[in-house]
Amino acid sequence: MDLVTLADIRAAAAVIRPAAVRTPLLRFADGLSVKPESLQPVGAFKIRGALNAIARLPEDVRARGVVAYSSGNHAQAVAYAAKLFRIQATIVVPENAPVIKVTATRAYGARVELVPMAERESRAAELVAETGAALIPPFDHPDVIAGQGTVGLEIAEDFPEVGTVLVPVSGGGLISGVATAVKALAPGARVIGVEPELAADAAESFRTGAVVSWPAEDRARTSADGLRAVLSDLTFAHIRARVDDVVTVTEEEIADAVRALARQTRIIAEPSGAVAVAAWLRLRSPASVAVVSGGNVDPDVLAALL
Amino acid sequence: MDLVTLADIRAAAAVIRPAAVRTPLLRFADGLSVKPESLQPVGAFKIRGALNAIARLPEDVRARGVVAYSSGNHAQAVAYAAKLFRIQATIVVPENAPVIKVTATRAYGARVELVPMAERESRAAELVAETGAALIPPFDHPDVIAGQGTVGLEIAEDFPEVGTVLVPVSGGGLISGVATAVKALAPGARVIGVEPELAADAAESFRTGAVVSWPAEDRARTSADGLRAVLSDLTFAHIRARVDDVVTVTEEEIADAVRALARQTRIIAEPSGAVAVAAWLRLRSPASVAVVSGGNVDPDVLAALL
Repeated sequence: MDLVTLADIRAAAAVIRPAAVRTPLLRFADGLSVKPESLQPVGAFKIRGALNAIARLPEDVRARGVVAYSSGNHAQAVAYAAKLFRIQATIVVPENAPVIKVTATRAYGARVELVPMAERESRAAELVAETGAALIPPFDHPDVIAGQGTVGLEIAEDFPEVGTVLVPVSGGGLISGVATAVKALAPGARVIGVEPELAADAAESFRTGAVVSWPAEDRARTSADGLRAVLSDLTFAHIRARVDDVVTVTEEEIADAVRALARQTRIIAEPSGAVAVAAWLRLRSPASVAVVSGGNVDPDVLAALL
Repeated sequence: MDLVTLADIRAAAAVIRPAAVRTPLLRFADGLSVKPESLQPVGAFKIRGALNAIARLPEDVRARGVVAYSSGNHAQAVAYAAKLFRIQATIVVPENAPVIKVTATRAYGARVELVPMAERESRAAELVAETGAALIPPFDHPDVIAGQGTVGLEIAEDFPEVGTVLVPVSGGGLISGVATAVKALAPGARVIGVEPELAADAAESFRTGAVVSWPAEDRARTSADGLRAVLSDLTFAHIRARVDDVVTVTEEEIADAVRALARQTRIIAEPSGAVAVAAWLRLRSPASVAVVSGGNVDPDVLAALL
């Protein structure tokens, strides 16, 4: 299987530069800086992959629009990126998605189709067949992985002596890209994936050497609602080749990390976005960077955590 | 009176680069980007002026240490900067300062002296006389103003077509520096100061043409506890020469801006830090940048505002 290369990520960096924020490293404590992707437009790193994937579509394909199925940050990222490219985005959303997320996606100019949860993928495939629009997957695509990899490129550029990079893992697109850039530019650095222990299928996959999928109702238990996806063969191949370990954190550790990020670094992280910091608070590895992947948290949930 | 120049600010930028964050511009809404100085170490732009002022001390003077009197962000900035320079900082703090701020200042390695409110300045002067340490004032010094001016330099570099720059005003150090850089590099841009209407002595000074000082008990009414200082002759001279207007915002507008920054841009602003965004929410000027000057807000206060 062909893996994404550093050259792919450098090309993505040039593509996304006008629209994505080049996030700075922020000091969290001695030994840890955070990479606050919560500061991106739409509040998550997902904008990087969405921009790169749409930019790399052939122009005639792109003109027919894009489709995504997601109720989370990927939906808003595709909607936002499509607006920048002045093309139509259709987002297929499960009927039980929070109204606030549907409203936000519509606010970025996307058409939203509400369907029963089980029909998300099939409806998206139908839309692609009917309209010729391109499907932008949330992680299982080289262009998406290359876009997310620009996070790792920036970390290596800003902190060449980095010792450990901690990255949240869901479907694995972010860590696949980050590990590719970091291992190429800072080969001495360790790259560690972090998952909630209540949705630790990537950790189990890493340990057993084969992609494991936990039942959706098990994965739904964690407060880290952005970390419930399952690895694909493509992301697992990157993880096996380039990631040093996958560790897990408890729900309490996640809540503590959200609180500490607000107090010590004055940033708003969603629970999913805080798992890498949660892991560091236990590991205390020196010269570390933790990716804070997103900041879309319900204000009431955040207020309760402060 | 000699005013700070663009060359002073460029020199400051080179000095502070290793230790201050080069904050990105973040999209808040169509027409407004924010400059999130809440992301700095110590959570406020104050680190820029403190670093520059300490760096520019003659080496033999610097070795004797520094003194500051403040209970706010300036105290922590001087303590943090002194630690980087491996020199002693003594911070003179009023006895009634919140314990949390004293603890934070000590955590940065500073010696804290608690004195009655009325004796802060005289005790600081005594310390300078006794020890030969250098006083680092919060705003009334060209090196401090030049350091804060790097905020404006970065805005003009990142957004050369900026139309309006909105800046919180307290003692006037930040807006003096920002206006100097912006007017030099983007002469078509308007620079507007923003104050709480409950502590609007700078607005009144601007209107009447002479420095006006409101009674401290009047200034104490605003929730924006970082905006209660009074202009100095030096900062007023910069404001008269380089600032286009000073406007005021209500307490309710400040609270709304803190909330909107958390929800739309996912950053934590203290009330003082949010006044420029509050003003924009009324003015809606196109192509604007609002400086979010700091993010040190009590977690309970923040939770209530979300």
